[in-house]
Amino acid sequence: TGLVLLIQGLGLTAVILVAVWMGHFREGFAWTSDPAKEFNYHPVFMVIGLIFLYSDAILAYRVFRNVKKMYIKIVHGFIHLGALVFASVGLKAVFDSHNLAPTPIPNMYSLHSWLGIITVVLFGLQWLIGLLTFLAPGLSQGLRTLYMPHHVFWGVAILCMAAATALMGITEKAIFLKSTIQYTEKSTEGLVLNSLGIVIVALVALVAFVVTR
Amino acid sequence: TGLVLLIQGLGLTAVILVAVWMGHFREGFAWTSDPAKEFNYHPVFMVIGLIFLYSDAILAYRVFRNVKKMYIKIVHGFIHLGALVFASVGLKAVFDSHNLAPTPIPNMYSLHSWLGIITVVLFGLQWLIGLLTFLAPGLSQGLRTLYMPHHVFWGVAILCMAAATALMGITEKAIFLKSTIQYTEKSTEGLVLNSLGIVIVALVALVAFVVTR
Ligand code: HEM
Ligand code: HEM
Ligand code: HEM
Ligand code: HEM
Ligand SMILES: O=C1O[C@H]([C@@H](O)CO)C(O)=C1O
Repeated sequence: TGLVLLIQGLGLTAVILVAVWMGHFREGFAWTSDPAKEFNYHPVFMVIGLIFLYSDAILAYRVFRNVKKMYIKIVHGFIHLGALVFASVGLKAVFDSHNLAPTPIPNMYSLHSWLGIITVVLFGLQWLIGLLTFLAPGLSQGLRTLYMPHHVFWGVAILCMAAATALMGITEKAIFLKSTIQYTEKSTEGLVLNSLGIVIVALVALVAFVVTR
Repeated sequence: TGLVLLIQGLGLTAVILVAVWMGHFREGFAWTSDPAKEFNYHPVFMVIGLIFLYSDAILAYRVFRNVKKMYIKIVHGFIHLGALVFASVGLKAVFDSHNLAPTPIPNMYSLHSWLGIITVVLFGLQWLIGLLTFLAPGLSQGLRTLYMPHHVFWGVAILCMAAATALMGITEKAIFLKSTIQYTEKSTEGLVLNSLGIVIVALVALVAFVVTR
């Protein structure tokens, strides 16, 4: 439980760092009226959904040890649903920022976008299969037991993929802005975004550690 | 064992893709005489060491099932040592390419370089601790059994960190070259480097799957 608190702290730190990066250094947010600022919602929503909520949903089983199993299942499923919603809005923000730009930017050209889409699709599938297997009333206990280790393995694997995608996204944005933010000179903004990346790695490593214990 | 062959195939594919990228598209290799081309050794050596050899060393325990345990230990330890040597030369190449450039480029400013150094240091520590624990004659069996699950967990975790570092490195290089290689237009070079990234992800996911089974 000391570890669970530390993970919570790292999750909150990641959300704060990405919000400060986009809200303060990248000059805040707008919706479709200003596609360049609409982009800024993308990193924030992806980190809230696919890093922060994702980790919290997994930890639900470790936090509420004395609550009826059925209730935890519902909490776990709902937080993951929330993660999926944030991720979807975050994707809409970045696609808008490309399509609505004065000179539109092509979609789906980068390694970041390829792994990102794969991650979100797998996450959606995992959610659906989890729901069908563990909440559908008809299913035999045998099938559930058979699927369980795969549910846990892919649950952690997809979290790692989300983290790797986020690290590439941070790197892309940092290199796009390289000269504006003097990235090579170790500017404050550069330090903030590097720290965001390291916090995400520490967080995911600890979640994997807790789950495999 | 079908899986082990598939992993071998993916590992070789990754090495070929990174060699084609640097050797063909990025115009080949040189040592300190031409720092820009010395850089090209960096991705190749890091992928050979910290992705290909790293995976193979882990799989040694799954391949040689009927060989005396002590022999496998030595093979496992030696391949990891080889990985460390490739990684060190790969790091020398990139530091040279910064320090020996006509106008030197600062070191250690990027998230890629931060996570990269952390990864290599942890890998070196894991190697040392593994050697001391499993090959030092004096050590009690109890201590070995206690350390074993941590050795396996960190072995896989550091592999994931190496993969994430490689993905950021690929992304950095792609964005540096964005206009030269028409990355957004889905050029052949862009497709090669995106595929390299996806192959690395598939490889590491499969190694993790095999080890946790
Ligand atoms: C794990 C969460 C993430 C996922 C699944 C994800 C997914 C995506 C996808 C699918 C695109 C392509 C949009 C298009 O082609 O129109 C994209 C673009 C982009 N994302 Fe993310 N992203 C994530 C996190 C981040 C973060 C944390 C950043 C940090 C700044 C970021 C920065 C970018 C940038 C700069 C682009 C535009 C360049 C490109 O198309 O690659 N992303 N993202
Ligand atoms: C994308 C969505 C999902 C992901 C990534 C995911 C991931 C995980 C992970 C990593 C664990 C292991 C937790 C631990 O051992 O502490 C887990 C456990 C579990 N999940 Fe999910 N899950 C998802 C959706 C669902 C859904 C929709 C359900 C249906 C209610 C579900 C039901 C369960 C159950 C019953 C457990 C077993 C807990 C135990 O007995 O230890 N999951 N999930
Ligand atoms: C897992 C393996 C890898 C590790 C541990 C690693 C580590 C490092 C380190 C420590 C630096 C900083 C050098 C300096 O500051 O002088 C660096 C730079 C660099 N690496 Fe890698 N690297 C890896 C893989 C790759 C790959 C596969 C590429 C693909 C092209 C790549 C591209 C770059 C680039 C472009 C730089 C210069 C920009 C910067 O300093 O971030 N790296 N790498
Ligand atoms: C950085 C270097 C190293 C890494 C990343 C690493 C990683 C791993 C991993 C992931 C496994 C699990 C393999 C499996 O279950 O199939 C493993 C097993 C093992 N490693 Fe290492 N290892 C390293 C160095 C060493 C060294 C130097 C030794 C000393 C000889 C060693 C001794 C062992 C032993 C005895 C096992 C147990 C195999 C078993 O009984 O299943 N390792 N290592
Ligand atoms: O923020 C972004 O920057 C790039 C591009 O505009 C830089 O040339 C891109 O695709 C974004 O979404």
